[in-house]
Amino acid sequence: MASENIRPVMTAEEVNTYLAQVYPQLNDTLAEYYAVSVAPGQCVVRLDASQKHVRPGGTVSGPSLFTLADIGGYVCVLSHLGQEALSVTTNLNINFMRKAEPGPIDGHCRILKMGRSLMVFDIEMRSPPGGPVVAHATGTYSIPPRK
Amino acid sequence: MASENIRPVMTAEEVNTYLAQVYPQLNDTLAEYYAVSVAPGQCVVRLDASQKHVRPGGTVSGPSLFTLADIGGYVCVLSHLGQEALSVTTNLNINFMRKAEPGPIDGHCRILKMGRSLMVFDIEMRSPPGGPVVAHATGTYSIPPRK
Amino acid sequence: MASENIRPVMTAEEVNTYLAQVYPQLNDTLAEYYAVSVAPGQCVVRLDASQKHVRPGGTVSGPSLFTLADIGGYVCVLSHLGQEALSVTTNLNINFMRKAEPGPIDGHCRILKMGRSLMVFDIEMRSPPGGPVVAHATGTYSIPPRK
Amino acid sequence: MASENIRPVMTAEEVNTYLAQVYPQLNDTLAEYYAVSVAPGQCVVRLDASQKHVRPGGTVSGPSLFTLADIGGYVCVLSHLGQEALSVTTNLNINFMRKAEPGPIDGHCRILKMGRSLMVFDIEMRSPPGGPVVAHATGTYSIPPRK
Repeated sequence: MASENIRPVMTAEEVNTYLAQVYPQLNDTLAEYYAVSVAPGQCVVRLDASQKHVRPGGTVSGPSLFTLADIGGYVCVLSHLGQEALSVTTNLNINFMRKAEPGPIDGHCRILKMGRSLMVFDIEMRSPPGGPVVAHATGTYSIPPRK
Repeated sequence: MASENIRPVMTAEEVNTYLAQVYPQLNDTLAEYYAVSVAPGQCVVRLDASQKHVRPGGTVSGPSLFTLADIGGYVCVLSHLGQEALSVTTNLNINFMRKAEPGPIDGHCRILKMGRSLMVFDIEMRSPPGGPVVAHATGTYSIPPRK
Repeated sequence: MASENIRPVMTAEEVNTYLAQVYPQLNDTLAEYYAVSVAPGQCVVRLDASQKHVRPGGTVSGPSLFTLADIGGYVCVLSHLGQEALSVTTNLNINFMRKAEPGPIDGHCRILKMGRSLMVFDIEMRSPPGGPVVAHATGTYSIPPRK
Repeated sequence: MASENIRPVMTAEEVNTYLAQVYPQLNDTLAEYYAVSVAPGQCVVRLDASQKHVRPGGTVSGPSLFTLADIGGYVCVLSHLGQEALSVTTNLNINFMRKAEPGPIDGHCRILKMGRSLMVFDIEMRSPPGGPVVAHATGTYSIPPRK
């Protein structure tokens, strides 16, 4: 389903190590959001949702799921283009479909297009992993010119 | 990947026949946009793109692909809820990724959520059928109260 | 409200003349969709909606309003960057809010960002002109490198 | 510009007091995100962005701006429909346009449609207040049936 002609240049473990090194102020957050796996044209990211991600009613908050979607797109760019890629999100559209409860939430992320200046992706978020889709997002990252 | 607990109540042929009956003024258009198949939680729709769908440069126009996406969502609602469902599009987000050339373009449409008052779907448009994704959309249909 | 530091380089009349010259196959359509005015960072486009834009129920169709939104963005790019700009839509998100009836529908379009490679805009569609918002869209055009 | 026929039933101060009472676990967050003003069909919300909202590079993060947009929509619903309204976000589309620096960021939020079951809004986020638009979002809240 994903773009077939692109290959990752970093593993999930390398992505997580890199993020912890360059974003030391995010280390608390990175313990909760992280890459699970990387494959050609796709990746899986996870949020270990706890009480701090929950809004009244016991549901994982919209901003927490948005963050998972945004990180999914970033891990796709980083794992496929490497560490030089200082890309930024330009657009993200998210639909919330079902209540997500605390616990692991998996984001299955696909690269729909890896262009010269834009990467387009979508992500299905399932809670619990393998369960129903709780949210779905589509987004665009702007990729800076590569040397 | 799609919602598993819903079953279609109309076939693709029944959908096409119904559309031609109730929308006689669309018969020209319906010859170009039509349902190819219906399955639980999903459907395939097709645009037979010709010169009239092409904009300068030889590319199938954005509005033509938007129309395919919108029809994909409508066929999902109609085939799964039946003819009483007078649903309307409330939101549609579309990303254009590659140039689409004249010829058949297939839209693979999934129901992400069939709720009481909203249906959320996404659609991948491939040109030629089986080829790369030329556009991707996510949308919401409002479903009227059922008796 | 719109970006203040950009100035149009073409008038609405020049935009309409240019479109009719370079897109002769669109002349039927261009009689219905056209630029009404251009100002710094914004433009107004209009659809003269007739029976051919109406879907069953007497409402102007979603694809017709999508086309108006898309043309609004294009007129913004063209009027502010000039004729060399071969830009294409990369993303468009549209919300449909009220039924639009046949007759003129005005699209008030603002440039939210004119970047080096992307232009972001939004558009409010009012029917009749000065009446309530029937649809609202936000979109992105990709701008090719300028010499 | 906003819907004219609706009137708020709560002031910004009442909204902030209500949020602090019913969401005690959010009190830290509510000190940073809050309602500034409410008017017919619109509201202004603010994020006092500090180092904790900043990502590497010194820019306010995407999730922080998403949260501001989501709160803007929520304050619109709450202030216009009152405390019974247990509405939830169903869709949010956000475009990031310029870097936002720490300090106050104002979100100017308009109700585009207040329907029976859906509220559609948009929000312009300006940093600093009165400065350029750093992000723009459009979203939908689902409104539960009212007695």
